[in-house]
Amino acid sequence: MKLPFSQLDANGRLRHLITLEGLGRDLLEELLDRAGDCQPNSAQRPVPAPLAGWTVAHLFAEPSTRTRASFELASVRLGAYALNLDMMLSSRAKGETIGDTLQTLESMQIDAFVIRDAEAGVLERAARQAAPEVSIVSGGEAHLSHPTQGLLDALTIRQCKGRFDDLVVAIAGDIRRSRVARSAHHALAILGAPEIRIIAPAELMPAAGEFPGARRFDSLDDGLTGADVVMMLRVQRERGGGAAAPDGDDYHRDWGLTAARLRRASPGAIVMHPGPMNRGVEIASDVADGPQSVIFRQVANGVAVRMAVLTHLAEARRARGR
Amino acid sequence: MKLPFSQLDANGRLRHLITLEGLGRDLLEELLDRAGDCQPNSAQRPVPAPLAGWTVAHLFAEPSTRTRASFELASVRLGAYALNLDMMLSSRAKGETIGDTLQTLESMQIDAFVIRDAEAGVLERAARQAAPEVSIVSGGEAHLSHPTQGLLDALTIRQCKGRFDDLVVAIAGDIRRSRVARSAHHALAILGAPEIRIIAPAELMPAAGEFPGARRFDSLDDGLTGADVVMMLRVQRERGGGAAAPDGDDYHRDWGLTAARLRRASPGAIVMHPGPMNRGVEIASDVADGPQSVIFRQVANGVAVRMAVLTHLAEARRARGR
Amino acid sequence: MKLPFSQLDANGRLRHLITLEGLGRDLLEELLDRAGDCQPNSAQRPVPAPLAGWTVAHLFAEPSTRTRASFELASVRLGAYALNLDMMLSSRAKGETIGDTLQTLESMQIDAFVIRDAEAGVLERAARQAAPEVSIVSGGEAHLSHPTQGLLDALTIRQCKGRFDDLVVAIAGDIRRSRVARSAHHALAILGAPEIRIIAPAELMPAAGEFPGARRFDSLDDGLTGADVVMMLRVQRERGGGAAAPDGDDYHRDWGLTAARLRRASPGAIVMHPGPMNRGVEIASDVADGPQSVIFRQVANGVAVRMAVLTHLAEARRARGR
Repeated sequence: MKLPFSQLDANGRLRHLITLEGLGRDLLEELLDRAGDCQPNSAQRPVPAPLAGWTVAHLFAEPSTRTRASFELASVRLGAYALNLDMMLSSRAKGETIGDTLQTLESMQIDAFVIRDAEAGVLERAARQAAPEVSIVSGGEAHLSHPTQGLLDALTIRQCKGRFDDLVVAIAGDIRRSRVARSAHHALAILGAPEIRIIAPAELMPAAGEFPGARRFDSLDDGLTGADVVMMLRVQRERGGGAAAPDGDDYHRDWGLTAARLRRASPGAIVMHPGPMNRGVEIASDVADGPQSVIFRQVANGVAVRMAVLTHLAEARRARGR
Repeated sequence: MKLPFSQLDANGRLRHLITLEGLGRDLLEELLDRAGDCQPNSAQRPVPAPLAGWTVAHLFAEPSTRTRASFELASVRLGAYALNLDMMLSSRAKGETIGDTLQTLESMQIDAFVIRDAEAGVLERAARQAAPEVSIVSGGEAHLSHPTQGLLDALTIRQCKGRFDDLVVAIAGDIRRSRVARSAHHALAILGAPEIRIIAPAELMPAAGEFPGARRFDSLDDGLTGADVVMMLRVQRERGGGAAAPDGDDYHRDWGLTAARLRRASPGAIVMHPGPMNRGVEIASDVADGPQSVIFRQVANGVAVRMAVLTHLAEARRARGR
Repeated sequence: MKLPFSQLDANGRLRHLITLEGLGRDLLEELLDRAGDCQPNSAQRPVPAPLAGWTVAHLFAEPSTRTRASFELASVRLGAYALNLDMMLSSRAKGETIGDTLQTLESMQIDAFVIRDAEAGVLERAARQAAPEVSIVSGGEAHLSHPTQGLLDALTIRQCKGRFDDLVVAIAGDIRRSRVARSAHHALAILGAPEIRIIAPAELMPAAGEFPGARRFDSLDDGLTGADVVMMLRVQRERGGGAAAPDGDDYHRDWGLTAARLRRASPGAIVMHPGPMNRGVEIASDVADGPQSVIFRQVANGVAVRMAVLTHLAEARRARGR
């Protein structure tokens, strides 16, 4: 019988971070608090470094994504050695199993793995097979989960809005294929945001039953009305999945965030985007660069939340006596 | 006239490590002793680091092999800076010669090069052209040589068996194209293993005259009988070389190591594999994961022997006053 | 209105290094002086390291060029963390703008970017959009500019000749497509070399108006006569640009530097080449390896001038209070 999987250790601390779904509000808030202290200012780094002596392996099929760079910098700024391996676990050549690849690397004394994979389930499989002292951190899993993105989005919202408990958050665009939207939904639901809206044309809307509790809108104008937070998603053409989305100009006319549309949201609404942006498609350039945009603050917070997660994992391991 | 090539310096220490063939037993045993002290526990690392101030360049055509990662970690754990260059010397574009590529990099103050190349002779050519203070270390040369793999195999055997002088070692599979088998044979012959068996179907058996002193078997059942060490090799389909091997299932039926077959070996026999494994082809999963398997201990020893080799090279250089 | 671009800050120090054109002689000489002190001897490095706490991002489309390795080593030997991103800004996938890519990386606290790009203008665009504390350094821009190569060439000449003010410098080969030649011309003109010759077949000669002040020769024999410095360029077949150059052997007969041809130059003339060399095409092997060749000294000086530039940028930033 396959035991249910838990990301938590016996002390209720994270041993892995595969998804935000099911985590407690206290744990998420602690991670956000810690990330607030991790703003990367080299003069203020703790000595000794929290990850001194660690090796963190970064397994990304594509070496130059922003997420890989963000994790690499988080690792090294905490004192770890960053081993970069350009590979996707699920498509390893030479017939080797995922477990064997991981155990091989573990045998070289890797302390944590940051893994991005296009195949659902690979992250949990890796975590189930990991040695007791080794942590697995998701760098993005198929369309399902991108937990550190969810944390950086939550941190950005908390910094700008101060609270979650009366917020209307509108997430618009290619929801169906978006791990960003799923992890934002997980985080915001846990943190108590009372109204999460998902806004998409029918062909980009997720299946019924997904995004429990979210309000669904098939019009951007309607969905934006009164929103405190507007999170725009990029059309994931490269991710496929059977959805036929309108092309650039047409998409922008119906689904792009323009200054005029943004006026439907609350006066102090913030505009977010996980990047990379398609300016002129899902977002107008003047909105991306406008005073309500917090898009690059999200990126800075990305390094901070990844440092917070890695530090938490290291402390949890020390508490387990590993 | 071309002088004979020696890997040794005037003090009898290694200046390069291209092959184990021809090295002395004392030198090999010293490297194994030192590797035994290099078990990668960060708390026990010497200060100052043996390679502090060094730059080690890793030249591998494919960036994500286990051997590259193992060498990179050995380098950085000794205090060196690891420069990773995704290139194969023998196939450098732009018409540059191997000597010019190396001398260019040497001019940037590289202390050692770890080179994997698919072309025979490139490693020796590099070593002949290296500046006096620079060391060349093989990370695998064509089908010919993989000296640090031979050392890690020897270390693993010594740890498990305590001695070489009464061991029967069975190496089975694609011997013809295997640099792993060749370097294991070199190491074991030097260290005094009295009986080395090579076991393969005719089309994967090396030419007559290769593997001097080894006993040849064309049946896995026969070759395994009474063996103390069983080393399984993967079928190197990707390396070509004219040999037509049977396909997966057929291969497993005749040439795969199963639990039943393993019972022909000595009761305490250990099972080794250089990885990556094709489970269900050359080795059954329950054997790979069974109590006699030392496969992942081999990987851990890989980092240790590479640290031992690099430390030896650094000490030998200091002794030469470089 | 687009303001004129300046690489200098209000103190007259470099904020970026995109091109040598227009820089002052004092500034160039200071960089060369500093590079003379940066000869990479680990025992003599300043403590604390000039770039301690910095992250330098290296954006090169091809990961294994000598220039990328040279910059990476310069960065780490000054104490920075080297983030390597295999990407060309001008060909970023996913529709992201150059400005967004840079601002995303800047948000991760990158202190300097070293960028190689095949598209003219990308470096200036990056510098115009950079945050106030961030520096952009060219690692080679299209056929236009390669300022650190110009500096290393100037340093090598100064080391060998001691002065510029009576030198005849001959640059021969594929001038039209050579950023190396352009930056050498910039540096030498600023440093007061009285006679710069460009020597090329008509189809490799730059447009009229380029290389102001340079003497043009359509015969290598004539152009070499009396030269104190001979700088040979490789034929940049891979860079295209409409010029049809003769093939290898034919090229060597008419445009290759042989020992016989070199005798036309001054007795103590030095021979330079930016690498990678096509031996037997633009340069004969015995000349490349001969006593007048300073080709690998150029490479060593490459690390030194890059260390000098980065140190200058860091000091200039500190002086601005960033």
